[in-house]
Amino acid sequence: MERIELSPFQVARETLEVMLKTGLLMVTVDEKGKPNAMTIGWGFIGYIWTKPVFIVAVRPSRYTYTLVEKTGDFTVNVPVKGMEKAVELCGTVSGRDVDKFKECNFTPIASKYVKAPIIGECAIGFECRAMYKQDLISEALTKEVVSLCYPKGDYHRLYFGEILRVTAYRNYRELIL
Amino acid sequence: MERIELSPFQVARETLEVMLKTGLLMVTVDEKGKPNAMTIGWGFIGYIWTKPVFIVAVRPSRYTYTLVEKTGDFTVNVPVKGMEKAVELCGTVSGRDVDKFKECNFTPIASKYVKAPIIGECAIGFECRAMYKQDLISEALTKEVVSLCYPKGDYHRLYFGEILRVTAYRNYRELIL
Repeated sequence: MERIELSPFQVARETLEVMLKTGLLMVTVDEKGKPNAMTIGWGFIGYIWTKPVFIVAVRPSRYTYTLVEKTGDFTVNVPVKGMEKAVELCGTVSGRDVDKFKECNFTPIASKYVKAPIIGECAIGFECRAMYKQDLISEALTKEVVSLCYPKGDYHRLYFGEILRVTAYRNYRELIL
Repeated sequence: MERIELSPFQVARETLEVMLKTGLLMVTVDEKGKPNAMTIGWGFIGYIWTKPVFIVAVRPSRYTYTLVEKTGDFTVNVPVKGMEKAVELCGTVSGRDVDKFKECNFTPIASKYVKAPIIGECAIGFECRAMYKQDLISEALTKEVVSLCYPKGDYHRLYFGEILRVTAYRNYRELIL
């Protein structure tokens, strides 16, 4: 199926709403080009330093953290109806133990600008190059957030990924969750 | 004119597109309740720590910085067609010298959850309470960004504002720039 190119903010609403409902799939690759997917429920779309940017939050304990630190890029993919189980799996097992692309029958499609591929089964894909990163500062977080989200002190690193390209299936609206 | 309440991401696309085209108006208040507006061209809409969040970037030299540091809240307003000159003014003069609400004939409308009012002339308004803040780290920025955006070393502070309420005029689509 043919994918069309979209402007960075065109699908901001759909992307954020699916993120909230079921999660998005963040894809990274290892040195050999083997892709890995992780479910993300937190993230931001916006603009800074004259660039459209997708901010993702990754805990240092994650395999995705190791990969994005090495390659400096990632994609964010918006799943479609019927992918609920795959999204759940990608949020519960680690790419260190399981080949999630194989397990989920994901088809990697080569990105145009980054090493990480997009997922062929997903409706929308953002190609992002990490242009800035920053660790969250525990002292600036509220006590509620610390006890709710960081009981183990595993604070997220924020990656600001310049959005280099957004592609989607023409009928993405009908496809998404 | 009656304002309706929207879900946080419903107008993400429109808000980001107007931000890119002409800018949005960030409103803060001083201790006496006097409001000030500053044009912002950079920002993010997303979700983190189980909350919808609007991230804004403010330089320490700005009057807005002094105010948001004191009150801890702000609103983000999406201007309408015909407000181009006001948006330009609010991006060039300081609230220390000029009463921008008076100068621009802005009507402050009381927010429901924060001290900063929304601008009655704007199509959409986000009520935000700063729940986290973090200064940009110069060493993590690229040389291009530093020379393009920070020649004076005036690095932004990012404010993560929990979006407590979004209101808009029913016909916001027709009104916006």
